[in-house]
Amino acid sequence: MPIKYLLREDQIPRHWYNILADLKSPPAPVLHPGTKKPVTPQDLAPLFPMSIIEQEMSAQREVPIPDEVRHALALWRPSPLYRAERFEKAIGTRSHVYYKYEGVSPPGSHKPNTAVAQAYYNAKEGVKRMATETGAGQWGSALAFAGALFGLKVTVYMVRISFEQKPYRRSMMHAWGAEVFPSPTDRTNAGRSILAKDPRSNGSLGIAISEAVEDAATHDDTKYSLGSVLNHVLLHQTVIGQEAQEQMKMAGEYPDVVIACHGGGSNFSGIALPFARDKINGKKVRLVASEPTSCPSLTKGVYTFDFGDTVGMTPLVKMHTLGHDFMPPGIHAGGLRYHGAAPLVSKLLDEGLIEAVAYPQRACFEAAVTFSRSEGIIPAPESSHAIKATVEEARKADAEGRTRVILFNLSGHGHFDLAAYDQYFAGKLEDFEYPREAVERSIANLPRVEL
Amino acid sequence: MPIKYLLREDQIPRHWYNILADLKSPPAPVLHPGTKKPVTPQDLAPLFPMSIIEQEMSAQREVPIPDEVRHALALWRPSPLYRAERFEKAIGTRSHVYYKYEGVSPPGSHKPNTAVAQAYYNAKEGVKRMATETGAGQWGSALAFAGALFGLKVTVYMVRISFEQKPYRRSMMHAWGAEVFPSPTDRTNAGRSILAKDPRSNGSLGIAISEAVEDAATHDDTKYSLGSVLNHVLLHQTVIGQEAQEQMKMAGEYPDVVIACHGGGSNFSGIALPFARDKINGKKVRLVASEPTSCPSLTKGVYTFDFGDTVGMTPLVKMHTLGHDFMPPGIHAGGLRYHGAAPLVSKLLDEGLIEAVAYPQRACFEAAVTFSRSEGIIPAPESSHAIKATVEEARKADAEGRTRVILFNLSGHGHFDLAAYDQYFAGKLEDFEYPREAVERSIANLPRVEL
Repeated sequence: MPIKYLLREDQIPRHWYNILADLKSPPAPVLHPGTKKPVTPQDLAPLFPMSIIEQEMSAQREVPIPDEVRHALALWRPSPLYRAERFEKAIGTRSHVYYKYEGVSPPGSHKPNTAVAQAYYNAKEGVKRMATETGAGQWGSALAFAGALFGLKVTVYMVRISFEQKPYRRSMMHAWGAEVFPSPTDRTNAGRSILAKDPRSNGSLGIAISEAVEDAATHDDTKYSLGSVLNHVLLHQTVIGQEAQEQMKMAGEYPDVVIACHGGGSNFSGIALPFARDKINGKKVRLVASEPTSCPSLTKGVYTFDFGDTVGMTPLVKMHTLGHDFMPPGIHAGGLRYHGAAPLVSKLLDEGLIEAVAYPQRACFEAAVTFSRSEGIIPAPESSHAIKATVEEARKADAEGRTRVILFNLSGHGHFDLAAYDQYFAGKLEDFEYPREAVERSIANLPRVEL
Repeated sequence: MPIKYLLREDQIPRHWYNILADLKSPPAPVLHPGTKKPVTPQDLAPLFPMSIIEQEMSAQREVPIPDEVRHALALWRPSPLYRAERFEKAIGTRSHVYYKYEGVSPPGSHKPNTAVAQAYYNAKEGVKRMATETGAGQWGSALAFAGALFGLKVTVYMVRISFEQKPYRRSMMHAWGAEVFPSPTDRTNAGRSILAKDPRSNGSLGIAISEAVEDAATHDDTKYSLGSVLNHVLLHQTVIGQEAQEQMKMAGEYPDVVIACHGGGSNFSGIALPFARDKINGKKVRLVASEPTSCPSLTKGVYTFDFGDTVGMTPLVKMHTLGHDFMPPGIHAGGLRYHGAAPLVSKLLDEGLIEAVAYPQRACFEAAVTFSRSEGIIPAPESSHAIKATVEEARKADAEGRTRVILFNLSGHGHFDLAAYDQYFAGKLEDFEYPREAVERSIANLPRVEL
């Protein structure tokens, strides 16, 4: 039996799958933060190139992937799909576990799938520079990499505490030629206003978003770029699931359940949406999003309109949210610390097409260590949530006397998260239960919207 | 034109190529450090399992790769071979540049190719634990990974200064379940004797080797493992070149020149030996080893008998050496800081089958940054020496008005070397010229051997 299933380079998907075309009802409109009326393409034009805005609003089922983007994706795609036979033995299950491995991209996660597409469209429309924010650095390094490939300058506003504590993601961005500033900076009004109140501010993702948006809005040659949540980002990630479908065919199996971790929703959507299409067309498959108990937007959030950022500058979107001013505890899966969920994922959850589960971080690290020692790859802390959910699915199947086919997305490697593993081994990793009171407080602050 | 050439899993080579079978004359004997007489298999039995000792001394041309080893290699092999079209454009050459990428292994370098083979043979002969040394951690993490796959305990003696300054390689070894000690330790006589003289010793690779060898020699259930230099290690690496030969066929080209960086010789041999076989059989191909000017064993060393370690505990081997007590300057390519060269590589150089060049580290980092920004992968500082040599070959070809086909081995990624890139960008990286006086002093100390 082969260990992994590889596709040829000419099997990189030729289109992105847009699930908007297959939804039972149209998605809720995106609202202007001031007027609370639906936004128009013109409202978004200062921030995004027109082709991205069209993709954001398109209901075309199959969006062709430009040759230039496929050529850039070919630097690491198609990514391998593994049968995790050694891991199955390690956890003692009779279920068949498969994983799609996205850590083979140069920045080490699934993020470049959309970064190269966004860089391509920006370069094509004459944009010279892209501005973005990053927390721990996964997204910033993906965009730095993509900018290098398409000859675009990239400016990254990196949350100051991460800038100081996680220097190697920053170094990686430098290696690809990006400029990286610790946010808050004195380069924007948003940054200066924060620094005026607190010159030693640690920064936050919300502040960094405000700075990147302002940078783009105030420079003609510059656009803004986001690494998750939005429809076009999820669209670009569907290459993952499409490849996985072909690879599962090679393996001669079809998954009973597809699992991915969930933060903003891009890696979950990447693997799950093409299978959701199958499900809509009558196939039996469960789609499970695994999130941290400390930041449980899908399992504990409310489904309503909220801002995408902390300070309330972005448009309002209908999503599962813990409230835009909810500040999640400092877990190591930085990519899962987001108060909301992608509007598309939220709608699929609302329509009953997908499920969500939540796990505390220590149990996830335990699963990740078992995985490392059997399959060899050391997972990112984010991805460990998918592994933990996989272990639980396998155990349930074993208890029921069934053999399930489980597919999960290993969204990235943990080469820049080894300090978190150290803490886990030293017994110093804290578990955070569901922060009910903080969530209730921030949900009480949700903006009131009448449609 | 495809960007990369992928082989199927069933195309992982079925044998290792042993160039000993094709040498013009037999290799020089390996001498006992005390008697200076040729060592016997029995002399080596306390350190290595018998199947490894047989491979070390075998002249069998094609050594079958056990299924269990191929199954472990399949976790990341066959590794991709890329056509570096973007890099060709970036350096403005008309030559065709290809690279074989070994950074896809979980530990991130070519080292696991031999680590899994060694772990397999040790496990098969009932060994319970393997002891080894590591400098910056590449080899130690490869053996930790391999030990996890074959159920062996792994003890790593890590040079103390690296243990403290490079914590993430250490964390990686922990993630795979190995125990890691800062060397010198108080666990061995060798370590205790050093600590008695200098309780705050930074350690050295020579001391760490002594500790690992002593640990193995004094424990019945434990053997020693080495990650370069020896014949069996080079043998295990020949999967690289064999795969590259198939992939170059897919590309419809044959290399005019094959390039790899050179420290102990395992990554150079991995790609070069199968092509050396072609050369012996009449094919026209140049094989170039690229080493640092600061530690130029092949370009400036003498070809004679010397110890493999610093303190003179190991057998004597005939090799290009700068003298076993030569201490190379602290360049960032830690894997190239070795006073000698593999006996096999040395013999090939002596027979004129291969060439050697040397470059200072700043020029190598410059080439690596150009490579990162065009091909996306951030190279290990060691591998950057192969990239610099490739740039020089391409420039020479352009100057001659020729189009050459150049293949180099990208032996690993630089995810754990980003501090070195930071120093390069900050202009703080020091170049070390050939340390002539230090080399002359240590060459004067070479042991006298009469055969």
